[in-house]
Amino acid sequence: MRPITNTGATSLHSDSVSKDETKDLAAFSCPVPLPAGERILLGHGSGGKLSADLLKNVFLPALGNPVLNRLEDQAIVSLNGVRLAITTDSFVVKPLIFRGGDVGSLAVHGTINDLAMGGAEPLWLSAAFILEEGLPIETLRRVVGSMHEAAANAGVEIVTGDTKVVEKGSADGIFVNTTGIGLVREGISLSAAQARPGDAILVSGMLGDHGIAILAEREGLQFETAVQSDSAPLHTLVASLLEATREVRCLRDPTRGGLSSTLNEIAASSGVGMELEETSIPVREEVRDACEMLGLDPLYVANEGKLVAIVAPASAEAALRALQNHPLGKDARIIGRVTSEHPRMVVMRTPFGTTRIVDMLTGDQLPRIC
Amino acid sequence: MRPITNTGATSLHSDSVSKDETKDLAAFSCPVPLPAGERILLGHGSGGKLSADLLKNVFLPALGNPVLNRLEDQAIVSLNGVRLAITTDSFVVKPLIFRGGDVGSLAVHGTINDLAMGGAEPLWLSAAFILEEGLPIETLRRVVGSMHEAAANAGVEIVTGDTKVVEKGSADGIFVNTTGIGLVREGISLSAAQARPGDAILVSGMLGDHGIAILAEREGLQFETAVQSDSAPLHTLVASLLEATREVRCLRDPTRGGLSSTLNEIAASSGVGMELEETSIPVREEVRDACEMLGLDPLYVANEGKLVAIVAPASAEAALRALQNHPLGKDARIIGRVTSEHPRMVVMRTPFGTTRIVDMLTGDQLPRIC
Repeated sequence: MRPITNTGATSLHSDSVSKDETKDLAAFSCPVPLPAGERILLGHGSGGKLSADLLKNVFLPALGNPVLNRLEDQAIVSLNGVRLAITTDSFVVKPLIFRGGDVGSLAVHGTINDLAMGGAEPLWLSAAFILEEGLPIETLRRVVGSMHEAAANAGVEIVTGDTKVVEKGSADGIFVNTTGIGLVREGISLSAAQARPGDAILVSGMLGDHGIAILAEREGLQFETAVQSDSAPLHTLVASLLEATREVRCLRDPTRGGLSSTLNEIAASSGVGMELEETSIPVREEVRDACEMLGLDPLYVANEGKLVAIVAPASAEAALRALQNHPLGKDARIIGRVTSEHPRMVVMRTPFGTTRIVDMLTGDQLPRIC
Repeated sequence: MRPITNTGATSLHSDSVSKDETKDLAAFSCPVPLPAGERILLGHGSGGKLSADLLKNVFLPALGNPVLNRLEDQAIVSLNGVRLAITTDSFVVKPLIFRGGDVGSLAVHGTINDLAMGGAEPLWLSAAFILEEGLPIETLRRVVGSMHEAAANAGVEIVTGDTKVVEKGSADGIFVNTTGIGLVREGISLSAAQARPGDAILVSGMLGDHGIAILAEREGLQFETAVQSDSAPLHTLVASLLEATREVRCLRDPTRGGLSSTLNEIAASSGVGMELEETSIPVREEVRDACEMLGLDPLYVANEGKLVAIVAPASAEAALRALQNHPLGKDARIIGRVTSEHPRMVVMRTPFGTTRIVDMLTGDQLPRIC
């Protein structure tokens, strides 16, 4: 395992922060990003600050176009008046099999969720495999079987695929890419650029389960109660939510980089600030203990079956109830609100009455988490 | 480089072959497939016999559904009366940069071609990267730049993407996955199951360029005239062909496994035999020489800018002219015909008047060719 990087926790009083001070303070007190140099670092795949740098400095200058530049979890395109959502993800999780799933079910859930976060009904998936020479065929069979099961349970079809094999030592077991296509019904428009001051910030349940389950597996850790990955398909939860209220501004699943990176992305896209209440953020006792033991912050740990919803204030309670009435949202909470103060900055009020900045993930806390 | 595997060349007179004899003879004289055992071999990624075994024994039993079971290069799905083609491919070519392209342009062309072989107009691509820690960012920049160029030149948009990073030694530089979505216009229906006795077999140009270009790069070989990859997007060539005649039964691009594997797949899907004329098969002099030197058979070498067309006999000449009038098809030839004899078997008449079986690729001639 790589050293745990600084997660960027810094304390300050939000009351004393004006816009200009925020900027200076952030520049002064945030941890210095790892020097990117001229080579790819593990942190470039973290979903945090270095990932954002790579996007800004390499991908967007070359590939940028109006659809891609939205930087949502899915592209929305139109054909003959039909809106389609398209999303792609490669899964390089290590180990391949873990408590609560494996790389196959994770790939299916992850791709369904990226479609669902755009309000799309997932329809079709592609599945592409890069296999390492020497992989036991039994492992592949298990992964493919669990992809099928996950897809069938979610009502989506795997319609096309590809397999490549590379020499032993040129990959690591199985890498899976899943690309998903979904249908976006009329009237649905979700975007990280739509958060407005006053909006409520909701999460659909306990945070950090996936990351801790993977880490436990990888490091052979034992907890009193075994934590298992929350990997799950969220499209029916989203459907329930959108049925309850159309005043949802934005949905995101806090995967790599955790809640902190997700909220920072939304804050940046919308040019707003955010205020969280630490005591409202649902984290399982075992996950909290594991994080403490390992020096991790649950806000930076990946989830694979949770969503963040930004909802207009008048609909926040209705949204909360809709989430809580669904099995995958029973532990949903309102965890904070969007503010016009300290734009592009997420702060959290601690139980001690102080406020700390919740910055994007810097470096890579847990490589190959998904 | 791995040892060159037996390419399965066997001589026999087609005149003396009855259906039953063919079967016995094939069983007797074809090379024994590599024992698949219980582990993944490089040959499972060859596009040849072991790839077909993996599909049959692992992927289809778990994932099989009517769309996937067609086993075409692309899935065709319908939404509100609109037919979409979906295809996915990972590219693990080594080296990343070669004469005539790089992994980026190859990925874009390969995916466009898989759509085009279904008669689809390519519209959107996703691009997912698995990067190895330590990769020079300059290499990534070059690959991403050439993806953009290839996509822009072909008139398709890269609309969504993903990046993962794995530890040094857990991948090899850059693996690219591209998934493509295209529109299939009304009245178009191409399938490897549609070849009928009497149909003409056409190829759009010189065979083997891509494979030999990669091999030359990898092995540091020098030829008098440098062979460069034929990597190219074939959708406009297909459009010209389909404009000239709607009697095209099937299109395939002979990539991994080469012409031989492609024709064997079509023969198997349609339950027909095929007869090729060796002297009609266009192969560049330098490629022929290189193959001779290296003990390769050009019929098994990968192409990335060529197509095979199966066309009804009455339209064969019109199809040939349409191909030849396009810059990417100027060396097109009719290379043989479909027959009701020796079903599921491809045979080739040599310049010496003998006939040899052209079997699927066994093992892996050239790992990581695409």
